[in-house]
Amino acid sequence: MRQRPPLTPLVGALPSTVPFVGPEAQERDRGRPFRARIGANESSFGPSPKVIARMAGIAGDMWMYCDPDNHDLKVAVAAHLGVKAENVVVGEGIDGLLSLVARMYVAPGDAVVTSLGAYPTFNFHVAGVGGRLVTVPYKNDHEDLGGLLDAVVKEKAPLVYLSNPDNPMGSWWDAAEIIRFIEALPETTMLVLDEAYGELGPASALPPIDVSRPNVVRMRTFSKAYGLAGIRCGYAVAEAQVISDFEKIRNHYGVSRMAQIAGVEALADQAWLESVVGRVEAGRRRISEIAEANGLKPLPSATNFVTIDCGSDGAFAMKVLQALLSRDVFIRKPMAPGLDHCIRVSVGLDRELDIFAEELPGALAAARGN
Amino acid sequence: MRQRPPLTPLVGALPSTVPFVGPEAQERDRGRPFRARIGANESSFGPSPKVIARMAGIAGDMWMYCDPDNHDLKVAVAAHLGVKAENVVVGEGIDGLLSLVARMYVAPGDAVVTSLGAYPTFNFHVAGVGGRLVTVPYKNDHEDLGGLLDAVVKEKAPLVYLSNPDNPMGSWWDAAEIIRFIEALPETTMLVLDEAYGELGPASALPPIDVSRPNVVRMRTFSKAYGLAGIRCGYAVAEAQVISDFEKIRNHYGVSRMAQIAGVEALADQAWLESVVGRVEAGRRRISEIAEANGLKPLPSATNFVTIDCGSDGAFAMKVLQALLSRDVFIRKPMAPGLDHCIRVSVGLDRELDIFAEELPGALAAARGN
Repeated sequence: MRQRPPLTPLVGALPSTVPFVGPEAQERDRGRPFRARIGANESSFGPSPKVIARMAGIAGDMWMYCDPDNHDLKVAVAAHLGVKAENVVVGEGIDGLLSLVARMYVAPGDAVVTSLGAYPTFNFHVAGVGGRLVTVPYKNDHEDLGGLLDAVVKEKAPLVYLSNPDNPMGSWWDAAEIIRFIEALPETTMLVLDEAYGELGPASALPPIDVSRPNVVRMRTFSKAYGLAGIRCGYAVAEAQVISDFEKIRNHYGVSRMAQIAGVEALADQAWLESVVGRVEAGRRRISEIAEANGLKPLPSATNFVTIDCGSDGAFAMKVLQALLSRDVFIRKPMAPGLDHCIRVSVGLDRELDIFAEELPGALAAARGN
Repeated sequence: MRQRPPLTPLVGALPSTVPFVGPEAQERDRGRPFRARIGANESSFGPSPKVIARMAGIAGDMWMYCDPDNHDLKVAVAAHLGVKAENVVVGEGIDGLLSLVARMYVAPGDAVVTSLGAYPTFNFHVAGVGGRLVTVPYKNDHEDLGGLLDAVVKEKAPLVYLSNPDNPMGSWWDAAEIIRFIEALPETTMLVLDEAYGELGPASALPPIDVSRPNVVRMRTFSKAYGLAGIRCGYAVAEAQVISDFEKIRNHYGVSRMAQIAGVEALADQAWLESVVGRVEAGRRRISEIAEANGLKPLPSATNFVTIDCGSDGAFAMKVLQALLSRDVFIRKPMAPGLDHCIRVSVGLDRELDIFAEELPGALAAARGN
């Protein structure tokens, strides 16, 4: 054959890429496993034992399709947040919901505003619909609310992304600042407020849920504090009409039956969540102490990771990253200018942080060429 | 607020719809459960006991993200089919892959050819990218290969859908007919060959896998014969460049860790698959006998369901469907003109088919107004 089916011009112009390479791919390349898996902001503490038992118990039921309405999980989320089920949509992780939001609000050529160095998968999905990314640099390790607002207005952006607490810097704005930002947004601009780490920071960072406003969609996940990254389940909370609009394009059978049931069970065990939050706080302190003991500067964090300023430039931080990887410690680092002098270390089990503590001095020495 | 963020013109023009209402939604509406769940072409025989044990055993590992490359499952599928991993992409069921294919090959206004009454979720995803559906009526309960080909050529369609074995009619074409169809297709038209039921019919219905041809993408699933509908996992097999193009837009973290591992385990237990195929064959015979005993005409089937000609018009078949639902027997029926005189009954457990046998006479009498 001489010809082939052409991709659409939009898709044809995109690169073939995996926005986040997983630790498994690195392990395959290296030919050996990591000893500490503290790079993907997973919860090494796992899901609640009750969730594990429930998942194990329903394995034999997996011959049945999932409920395409995600009914029981929506009801549980709604009760948990004090909203109605009509204000909740469930998706294949926040990633899946971001893809849908991009398709819903962004036509080819539209400007979409985010921070320079914020979540790459959001950018990937915006590119996937032909959106034009407009990036605003972080300011003092925070997403720059004023800068984001200015860019939205200047570019007439239909969509803006903000994560609070923030990944990859771990920083956060208090609710009052977020509310001020929301109130200043043009009514025709949709805000994606990514609260993936919402359960892990101070309660003061989370504005009250307000589903009367049609230009805010808040996203949360079972991947972080609830310890269920592997089941792929997140949810969005918004005004009912916005939620209804997801029905137009979502993959109704995208969230597994296992995930829907595990999610309900996870919400029901808030005591487990509290215990995880406590362990994450302790882990953040430990990581910060390790960083300081090595002359590095840990940034304050409202998440399950600590971003560490390595005190030099991006090239140096990259060497530290590589030295840690070569010592079987899986971590990641921000890559964007302005953030790239840092590495990012997820809270893990004590024995994983022990390994980090043992290996960091050697990694720093190697990065310094000693 | 007086204004709201506008949807894109494309999405704004779509209805908010669930293409397939699930049995759970019907049970919620009815206020009581079904006694026989034989409507969604699930496998009541369940997944392999080895798969169940493995899923139960890894529940505690779900704190880890899935491998975004789906590496191990791709390798296992490739080995199973005698292709390379680069010829396989894994998705959130065939549904998820259909959504991607539509985005890859269909620009707004493009014609997409399918059969009138074929898989509604394909149509949903085509509408979601602004494609213009061109439908070809079935002919003698088969998808009309000649008619599909004519429509493709006439409409210069970039994409055509064919399921073999077919849903909702259960019919099939032998491999030679499929190959003839493929060879006659324009080189610039992509064929989605949906083989969701491929393991359940005669081997002669499946052409040899040929990944040299860039205009065929074959889709298979763990939802049917493998009994894993609830984990949401399917795969596509195609030429390597086509597979690589999926990377441009897919949700890399869409398929759960549970699904990836369950899929590998399911492929490894071909003895279980064979036993299921045997039980499905027996179930088809049983359903056909029940239909004939009631004066109805079962159609030949290469799937895990039997489509039954109720011998009258669509309105009558609808009454039969409703009478069975009211008797707590969950089945479905084709709705399209030319197919709508039929009901569709999935193979279930013996006790479920017992209930169908018990309730069908009364349902027919009710439908006839006796």
